[in-house]
Amino acid sequence: MIHNIALAGCGNVGTALLEILREKRTELSEKYGFNFRVTLITDLMKGTVLDPEGLDLEKIVGSLKEGKGLASFPKGQGTFGELLEKSRATMLAEATPTDLKTGEPGLSHIRAALSRGIHVTTTNKGPVSVAFDELSTLAKSCGAKFRYEGVVMSGTPLLQMLRSGMAGCTVLKLEGILNGTTNFILTKMSDEGSSYAEALEEATSLGYAESDPSGDVQGWDAAGKVSILAKIIFGKDIPVSEVERQGITCVTPEKIKEAFDSGYAVKLIAGLNWVNGMLYAYVTPKEIPFSHPLASIKGATNAVSITSDNLGEVTLIGPGAGRRETGQALLVDLIAMCRD
Amino acid sequence: MIHNIALAGCGNVGTALLEILREKRTELSEKYGFNFRVTLITDLMKGTVLDPEGLDLEKIVGSLKEGKGLASFPKGQGTFGELLEKSRATMLAEATPTDLKTGEPGLSHIRAALSRGIHVTTTNKGPVSVAFDELSTLAKSCGAKFRYEGVVMSGTPLLQMLRSGMAGCTVLKLEGILNGTTNFILTKMSDEGSSYAEALEEATSLGYAESDPSGDVQGWDAAGKVSILAKIIFGKDIPVSEVERQGITCVTPEKIKEAFDSGYAVKLIAGLNWVNGMLYAYVTPKEIPFSHPLASIKGATNAVSITSDNLGEVTLIGPGAGRRETGQALLVDLIAMCRD
Repeated sequence: MIHNIALAGCGNVGTALLEILREKRTELSEKYGFNFRVTLITDLMKGTVLDPEGLDLEKIVGSLKEGKGLASFPKGQGTFGELLEKSRATMLAEATPTDLKTGEPGLSHIRAALSRGIHVTTTNKGPVSVAFDELSTLAKSCGAKFRYEGVVMSGTPLLQMLRSGMAGCTVLKLEGILNGTTNFILTKMSDEGSSYAEALEEATSLGYAESDPSGDVQGWDAAGKVSILAKIIFGKDIPVSEVERQGITCVTPEKIKEAFDSGYAVKLIAGLNWVNGMLYAYVTPKEIPFSHPLASIKGATNAVSITSDNLGEVTLIGPGAGRRETGQALLVDLIAMCRD
Repeated sequence: MIHNIALAGCGNVGTALLEILREKRTELSEKYGFNFRVTLITDLMKGTVLDPEGLDLEKIVGSLKEGKGLASFPKGQGTFGELLEKSRATMLAEATPTDLKTGEPGLSHIRAALSRGIHVTTTNKGPVSVAFDELSTLAKSCGAKFRYEGVVMSGTPLLQMLRSGMAGCTVLKLEGILNGTTNFILTKMSDEGSSYAEALEEATSLGYAESDPSGDVQGWDAAGKVSILAKIIFGKDIPVSEVERQGITCVTPEKIKEAFDSGYAVKLIAGLNWVNGMLYAYVTPKEIPFSHPLASIKGATNAVSITSDNLGEVTLIGPGAGRRETGQALLVDLIAMCRD
């Protein structure tokens, strides 16, 4: 069976997926029985190309690498639903930019695909954040799969691990470092004695932090991820506004030094914890003893420690961002959907 | 559909599996559609009980807890193959004691099951070590699944992660702490300044180390695990005798102190690494910088860092042993086999 892949959003992540698909075509077929064509690529900036017989991936990846875009390939026109139909897509990889308020344009793309029985994988936090229940129900009723490994920790397989690797475990508590920018800043303050302002400046100049860094340093980004995890893992609605949230703006080099001298690292910890039958979500700077793996997490790496009844504590550490790392998240979902 | 589970080996791990199955019957049904009966339990010491309509799990777990064994339940007789047939088993959980030379009795159990199209999960390193290819081929030809999550790191889902969570990644290198006993000893020497002899004595008195500790401290156990991982992950035959192996007997408190003062922890590292197209397997004490998560691994915990093309480094940390932790490994495989 050949799967027809549609890609919505051909920025860094979408392009990385195309690159991996091109590189690994033979391996994916032999190892996982995953045979595919890419039949649709649509991008707000780069336009829409479509060929139900399969676009020339070799040439497209080459053209994207050279910054030439998609102009020289067969054009597609119509609504997104019409494009899906014309392209005979059986799977959609959704990697458009995130809008946490409306979920658009990803939300409409995913609705259009699932309602046609087309499997969807997305790295886009927007639709998962605003319409998780709706999309899960829609997927079920239309016999389509809906997956989203990349919405937390990029391709580090946290969701796969919780769903499959730890199947049968009851998760009691989860604590982790889910925001790379703040961890980069805290690492810099700790290892080099930088002030908060100096460390933030470097994070900004390296492109880790946005020009308005408040989403990261005030803990909003981590709170958003905790809110998503509450929904995905426990089926609980905890809006970002209800996550107890403290950022790192009040952390001083002195506090970090003092903690260090006592054998602790200061980390911005995002957590979910059951207290008296209620799920409690929080983001807060915490002193982690050096004997715990979370204390060793440096720079932009992410990590999560999961406490469960059957396994005690299991910790997963890996990249939290990156174009190829997030492209891998789409790929792993595509392979899973082909295996199911 | 109701799955009929046969359990071979009702020691600590087998009993833990029965306990979890009893506790979670409703949850397993609702969450994973996993409905089951336990129709056969056979144990060299405790005897054999069989009921194709399902043994009374409640009573059996109670009796095992009270140390009363299986004497008061319906007996089964015959060869293991006959028992499987009489019990109408559809899945076998194999948790008999490990014999790394012959693989028995697990090997015969697994052959008997797979050849009848019965899915198998095992925590027993013996059969996986001596007959991995034979059993994988047999499983394939008989349309049965063969899984073995528990042979490395107990229920910490390393194999699931490599197979599913990191599907599409090419593993370039793997390094980890796979022997809890030696890590307990090294942790003790580092944190408390104990001598090797003192630390070993405590490990023995706590039951971590055997009365003959050479399998652990000379690195044989870790080498065996590396050999299994070479086969499972890369399909490569690297016999234990060909693993470059150095144990911890030569590690002194002075060496540990010196490393510590320079920012390193001494750990017994088991590794697989591609060098010039050849897979190289080793077990050796190594100085790990404090900035790396493996340096923070304390006591009997296990950890593996996997370097791959798509994700860079991903580290998984969790229990390496334990009755319930290893029972979980059987459970996760049973759930996966029911889902497939």
